[in-house]
Amino acid sequence: MIITSRDNPNVKRIAKLTKRENARNEGVIFLEGTRLCEEALSSGQAALEVIVSEDRIEWAKKYTPDVEPLVLSQSVFTKISRTVNPQGVALLIKEPELSSSIPSKPDGKDIYVVLENTQDPGNLGTIIRMADAFGLTAVIIGPTTCDPYNDKVIRATMGSVWHIPVVRKTMEECFDHFDKAGIQTLAMHLKGSALNVEELSLPCAYFIGNEGDGLTGSTTSQCSKLIKIPMHGKAESLNAAVAASVIGYELSKLL
Amino acid sequence: MIITSRDNPNVKRIAKLTKRENARNEGVIFLEGTRLCEEALSSGQAALEVIVSEDRIEWAKKYTPDVEPLVLSQSVFTKISRTVNPQGVALLIKEPELSSSIPSKPDGKDIYVVLENTQDPGNLGTIIRMADAFGLTAVIIGPTTCDPYNDKVIRATMGSVWHIPVVRKTMEECFDHFDKAGIQTLAMHLKGSALNVEELSLPCAYFIGNEGDGLTGSTTSQCSKLIKIPMHGKAESLNAAVAASVIGYELSKLL
Repeated sequence: MIITSRDNPNVKRIAKLTKRENARNEGVIFLEGTRLCEEALSSGQAALEVIVSEDRIEWAKKYTPDVEPLVLSQSVFTKISRTVNPQGVALLIKEPELSSSIPSKPDGKDIYVVLENTQDPGNLGTIIRMADAFGLTAVIIGPTTCDPYNDKVIRATMGSVWHIPVVRKTMEECFDHFDKAGIQTLAMHLKGSALNVEELSLPCAYFIGNEGDGLTGSTTSQCSKLIKIPMHGKAESLNAAVAASVIGYELSKLL
Repeated sequence: MIITSRDNPNVKRIAKLTKRENARNEGVIFLEGTRLCEEALSSGQAALEVIVSEDRIEWAKKYTPDVEPLVLSQSVFTKISRTVNPQGVALLIKEPELSSSIPSKPDGKDIYVVLENTQDPGNLGTIIRMADAFGLTAVIIGPTTCDPYNDKVIRATMGSVWHIPVVRKTMEECFDHFDKAGIQTLAMHLKGSALNVEELSLPCAYFIGNEGDGLTGSTTSQCSKLIKIPMHGKAESLNAAVAASVIGYELSKLL
């Protein structure tokens, strides 16, 4: 059955869940577009609901054979779509729990990037993607860092949000854990000493501050070492995702 | 005199120039907000026109004492503003010529990043900022790379767009120049050999492809060496600005 009315209760319900705050309250994520949906499915996320436009029924049969899709007319799909050029494919998936404990690797060669207060979704997504690429153990986000299941974050991760653990912790919880586990803590700070991977060892965690203000004094003072990325030009600082990536890249040489 | 009418010819003229395509056609850039305006002025860009709201006349006296500002009522300023929370400060500056020749340093230790077809303004801005921070000689952009004076690009550069030469060249012009000048050319490519700065020397130019498609086969085949950034995780690739930054960072160790 193809739903042709915008007033259909299922359409109204899904339309509500396309707003991130509503989806978050219900513990789900609305994903739209072939790339985002296929990345999530191929990474083992299960579809709670499948929503396709009438011309994309074959997609649903191929990618979500076990779920009866909600089939909408193209005009109704366009109504719920959040994109300019709807691809006629959307999913609801269960929001993964942000891991409650900080994971570690059997060989103890752990690298953690801790984001105290990252505000830009593109930066958070890019950092999650980089952390996956460079083999980091987890991305740890502070209470005020933006929602990792925000649409822009998911897009920027290119699927990595489904591959690497993302853990939400207060800075106090982080330092408690790292101190007990004997994990070196590095503050990325303009007053730090020049990053030199030969002076570092694993396991280690590095802390990245807010885009505008950097790390808070409190977090900086609790880290065991301050490091900075050597710069030669006139720019005073780097984009937060670039800084996190350069350090992640250097530390990955120790893996 | 405070302009209180939206129909004032100067207001209409400025409003038109807040659209990038109109400003580009007239060879100017419209900048809005204290940070963007102050960065441009402190980097030596001259204000052609200064536009302030009635409560920001002191700003104009301080930062652009030699130019008679156009003073608008707050409601008229809000009309021309492109931001959600207007700061009451805007400038028109002359668009710098994209340098026609590829510059070089007296010591010959040149590093160039060449962007064949970068589409995301945030990526372009982040790369210009990184290139400035790591002391690269210039950023070279292909004909289809996005406008470096796009508002989003300028914002992401954090002022670096005024510090480092940005040169628009075809790939053919680049290879002509690099071949004649004996500059090594590196293609960032997933089939390349692992980036190892000890095997590289300056001067050198590295080529970064489009976000989705990477470098074209033609550009890849004309480079003297293919390199890739070693990755340990499940992600297949990095964000283009992150990849450009990691290579720029590694090469800057040779400066």
